[in-house]
Amino acid sequence: MVDRTSREIDRRHVFYPWAAQARIEPVVVTGGAGARFTDDTGASYLDFASQLVHANLGLQHPRLVAAIHRQADRLCTVSPNHATDVKAEAARLIATHAPGELDTVFFTTGGAEAVENAIRLARLHSGRHKILAAYRSYHGATAGAVTATGEPRRWASEPGIPGVVHFFGPYLYRSAFHATTEAEERDRALEHLEQVICFEGPDQVAAILLEPVVGTNGVLVPPDGYLAGVRELCDRYGILLVADEVMVGFGRVGEWFAVDAWNVVPDLLTFAKGVNSGYVPLGGVVLSPAIAASFADHAYPGGLTYSGHPLACAVAAESVRVFEDDDIPARARRLGETVVAPALAKIAAAHPSVGEVRGRGLFWAIELVADRDSRRMLVPYNASGPAAEPMSRVLAACKRRGVWPFTHFNRLQLAPPLIIDEADLAEGLAAVDEALAVADEYVTG
Amino acid sequence: MVDRTSREIDRRHVFYPWAAQARIEPVVVTGGAGARFTDDTGASYLDFASQLVHANLGLQHPRLVAAIHRQADRLCTVSPNHATDVKAEAARLIATHAPGELDTVFFTTGGAEAVENAIRLARLHSGRHKILAAYRSYHGATAGAVTATGEPRRWASEPGIPGVVHFFGPYLYRSAFHATTEAEERDRALEHLEQVICFEGPDQVAAILLEPVVGTNGVLVPPDGYLAGVRELCDRYGILLVADEVMVGFGRVGEWFAVDAWNVVPDLLTFAKGVNSGYVPLGGVVLSPAIAASFADHAYPGGLTYSGHPLACAVAAESVRVFEDDDIPARARRLGETVVAPALAKIAAAHPSVGEVRGRGLFWAIELVADRDSRRMLVPYNASGPAAEPMSRVLAACKRRGVWPFTHFNRLQLAPPLIIDEADLAEGLAAVDEALAVADEYVTG
Repeated sequence: MVDRTSREIDRRHVFYPWAAQARIEPVVVTGGAGARFTDDTGASYLDFASQLVHANLGLQHPRLVAAIHRQADRLCTVSPNHATDVKAEAARLIATHAPGELDTVFFTTGGAEAVENAIRLARLHSGRHKILAAYRSYHGATAGAVTATGEPRRWASEPGIPGVVHFFGPYLYRSAFHATTEAEERDRALEHLEQVICFEGPDQVAAILLEPVVGTNGVLVPPDGYLAGVRELCDRYGILLVADEVMVGFGRVGEWFAVDAWNVVPDLLTFAKGVNSGYVPLGGVVLSPAIAASFADHAYPGGLTYSGHPLACAVAAESVRVFEDDDIPARARRLGETVVAPALAKIAAAHPSVGEVRGRGLFWAIELVADRDSRRMLVPYNASGPAAEPMSRVLAACKRRGVWPFTHFNRLQLAPPLIIDEADLAEGLAAVDEALAVADEYVTG
Repeated sequence: MVDRTSREIDRRHVFYPWAAQARIEPVVVTGGAGARFTDDTGASYLDFASQLVHANLGLQHPRLVAAIHRQADRLCTVSPNHATDVKAEAARLIATHAPGELDTVFFTTGGAEAVENAIRLARLHSGRHKILAAYRSYHGATAGAVTATGEPRRWASEPGIPGVVHFFGPYLYRSAFHATTEAEERDRALEHLEQVICFEGPDQVAAILLEPVVGTNGVLVPPDGYLAGVRELCDRYGILLVADEVMVGFGRVGEWFAVDAWNVVPDLLTFAKGVNSGYVPLGGVVLSPAIAASFADHAYPGGLTYSGHPLACAVAAESVRVFEDDDIPARARRLGETVVAPALAKIAAAHPSVGEVRGRGLFWAIELVADRDSRRMLVPYNASGPAAEPMSRVLAACKRRGVWPFTHFNRLQLAPPLIIDEADLAEGLAAVDEALAVADEYVTG
């Protein structure tokens, strides 16, 4: 063993995602349990980001760790062309909780490939080419998924795949439709979407791809009736609805899947992250019977070596059982309603920098502004470097208080593990409350 | 637990890659060790495919399983933005064995995303757009990787990303250049590649992407001097060389990386599969210092949740140590030279259906023909259904004899785990010898 610390080895040999390599100083995580993790300086953090919004059952959940031990002793890997009991069981359990009649699972290793395959399935099933996707969305970083993405992470990879068109979704606080009520926002967003469909050619559109609750790009909870309206447009024009539940599925917003909050059934549903809290990389697509039937006699032209990975599926199966046994989605919903919502209402009232708080379950955004009247963002859209300093300072203030949230543009976003103690949740919210004093310094309005 | 077998649950709920769902009958694998696996009927197979050419250290290698147990108790998952000791150590160990000065590792969860990121890195570093890739290649099934792919698995996903152009590589047995010797094939393939570069615009070409030894598409070992010639063309025109070592890296062809056989150093090298035998999904790109430096101050626009996954990296680090301790690449080279090559020479002499045998290390192809003189393929290119029957029968004959090889088009391909016993290797080759009697029935020439 060479005599260098992990930190030095890391900085020399590891290349980081979405980062200027010389400008980052990653925390060296040495361990964790539940909603807390520690680093090599001895610091401990309350995890208000569930790592990257994926460890829905927290770190080192005993039942998930035990599932890894059990399966590791049985069979770690196998060809994706072979069946295993754990792949079958994971698929069955996921299908049990998937909305409506969705019943067949194509496993991938993460969200991006899930979206890639959803696009491919939709195109081949429908015989149509165009994909409508929302601005203010993130769908992954492979060429197809990043083309569907509706935020700056797409730009450097353009031109992407042909046939992807972006539309605006509902977002009342910054309405693209000059709406003033939720109902108006809903109606106008649906009118806009129908206009886009009509101008793109209704019978050219294979699918509408969206996050039922928009994740990284703002925790945008749609107005009641919006998703049902999208479903109706899809049915009217023969378009498939693809729900990207990679970030919001598996309890994050207080339901098994976000679409369940509005009883909307998509034709394809993508998942990853919360399916097994990322203990072993796993993602996938759940298919409607009609789409699965399209590939009964015709080969499906897609695949990957680790599809249906035994270790990943074993953890997924056990995770679903934990969700069932502990009623995790209901727990997230209740904590959101009884703990987070009231605390954030107080925070909004106390801090002039808070333009809006919104969320559901254990997924919330605090939208920070320099001026409440004009709603001018605390930092500009896609700010980096010095322009992003106000947000960097807010984040640092949270971390100094032992809380690790995640930030995106002008928002502090809270996504603690769904197993977090009520006391820890309250403690973290109190720390956020204090940290926001930093944001208030920038308020000019 | 419901009272259904895994087989029934699987057929109802699991969607399979590259398959017509109603026409497949996956084997239900119940366990395995080393180079053997068993199914739920009690059948046992000698694994001549290393599952999907990924379990280079075989199934349930005790040291890899132990590494999973150790890391599972420490930390299963973490944000990709955080450092860990195991991520640092895996990156350091991979960099130690990577060719030349390649020193920095960007981790993904598999080969397709590795290729996606290699393309992105090459484009952004060079400021150029075009990617040259070979016909008869497979690079993965996400939109970017599948566009680079040079075989039928690309077709259903077209049109893909812009800027990808295909060229012909060396393949003396079916020369695109009417060559009759290895040297002639090499020279003409390089001349062809330079022509393509010139007609595509030398200063438009970001990278040449290729498998140093072509994998699924034929175990095409390039003539000596070809890869050096490609490197020279790259240097002459300021083009980056991307070696896709997903299938052939980590000992498969008797070297740590296939390029090592010819002492050629690429600018980017992609890996997956053999890096940790797929016990936990992992892939990645190794970057040259120059390319890494391009992203020192400018953010790299790509990423994924499970980049640098702790469990995956822990197995990778241990796998590299096993490779070092047991000198796995040299073992594969030796077995190839002393056991496989002589056995296949005898097989070629005995069976009129064998047009050519070729390979290196523990990766070999038996190219089957209906007519040795005309070299007419035993089944047509991309055959399926009844047209593919001769190959289906050969495969079935192998399986009846307890050997599980993989087939692609008109080829039987042999890729046993690199830890296979010499006796098992000889046993499997004898079974293949017997099975080829089926192919001989179709010989008309």
